[in-house]
Amino acid sequence: MPIDRLTRLPEYGSTNRADLDALLDDQVLATVVCVVKGQPWVVPMLFARDGDHVLIHGSTGAGTLRHLAAGAPAAVSVTSLDGIVVAATTFDSSAQYRSAVIRGRFTVLEREERARALDVLSDRVIPGRTNEVRGSSAKEYAATLALAMPITPGGWVHKASLDGPDTPQGDDGVGVWGGVVPLRTVAGDPEPAAWSDAPVPASVLRLVERHG
Amino acid sequence: MPIDRLTRLPEYGSTNRADLDALLDDQVLATVVCVVKGQPWVVPMLFARDGDHVLIHGSTGAGTLRHLAAGAPAAVSVTSLDGIVVAATTFDSSAQYRSAVIRGRFTVLEREERARALDVLSDRVIPGRTNEVRGSSAKEYAATLALAMPITPGGWVHKASLDGPDTPQGDDGVGVWGGVVPLRTVAGDPEPAAWSDAPVPASVLRLVERHG
Repeated sequence: MPIDRLTRLPEYGSTNRADLDALLDDQVLATVVCVVKGQPWVVPMLFARDGDHVLIHGSTGAGTLRHLAAGAPAAVSVTSLDGIVVAATTFDSSAQYRSAVIRGRFTVLEREERARALDVLSDRVIPGRTNEVRGSSAKEYAATLALAMPITPGGWVHKASLDGPDTPQGDDGVGVWGGVVPLRTVAGDPEPAAWSDAPVPASVLRLVERHG
Repeated sequence: MPIDRLTRLPEYGSTNRADLDALLDDQVLATVVCVVKGQPWVVPMLFARDGDHVLIHGSTGAGTLRHLAAGAPAAVSVTSLDGIVVAATTFDSSAQYRSAVIRGRFTVLEREERARALDVLSDRVIPGRTNEVRGSSAKEYAATLALAMPITPGGWVHKASLDGPDTPQGDDGVGVWGGVVPLRTVAGDPEPAAWSDAPVPASVLRLVERHG
């Protein structure tokens, strides 16, 4: 039940940019990949789509980010595991998923572009949070890299399978259950920090609602 | 709020193999990475830990699997996004997560080892399913590659941060909510296929319970 099996099955691919955007706007976790000294290198990161770009950010002290900032060829992988497909045979069992890989190179954002990107990232993860707290200080901006990779035609793939199990052949399905177990990410109740006595703000309520 | 920021903070790392195993045994989705013609290559796959190995499988027609089967240097990334940390500033906001990267090379499993690995993978994703359905046929085995990467001392990293937000400095926290929004993956009710009229089996109940 490999998700990658479907990468060679073109009927699961989409060239519809709206499908890509829908997935990217539904997820906040990406796996960012590059090559370091000939070896594969991989780091999970929070990300945000901003129009035709994928944004990431991190400390100026993070080696991977500096490598990406230098223009290394990179790929950004985003996957949503949406269910387990239980077929009448283990061979036909598989996963429901949506996945995307965007390829390209990151560029470093400076000044206003960087400040805006960091706000986009913050508001993507905690919707509207930048309206509730002070803006970042010059020192905080200086400690943070913001990188953008353009989403270019032909520079991405989107694959999805939301099918149920095939109808069994022969006797395979006799007395055997088949179907789908859907999976989704849900948010629990917000857990205030000991130092926090303010009411739960709108941004956090939106975050919870997103995963309702 | 980059997850990668923490990769340079050794206090978030663990060299305790039990921490690695706990994460690998809690997740079924991995992002598998290699280098193809100098470019980063990335494919999401279902996986299973089997003792000191990471198992993956897929069609003999899948290009990535064939590349991995040829012994390309690879990395397996597994990440669980466990919560969003809402701090008093966007700069200090971050994610609760557990992540692992295992590095090495895959080897191809043959005959009994392959058959066993495929059963381990099936039972990992749908616990106990192999006891409920017929075994794979010779034709099905022949169409499937099973690969194993050894988990070696020094060949993996595990990082986790399950902290809440830091206590704010100065006036940053005045009237500002801070805390954590926990995230988790849950299973919905099993959805039977149209052809299926058997009761929901124990394997599927276990799968649902795992994500209860």
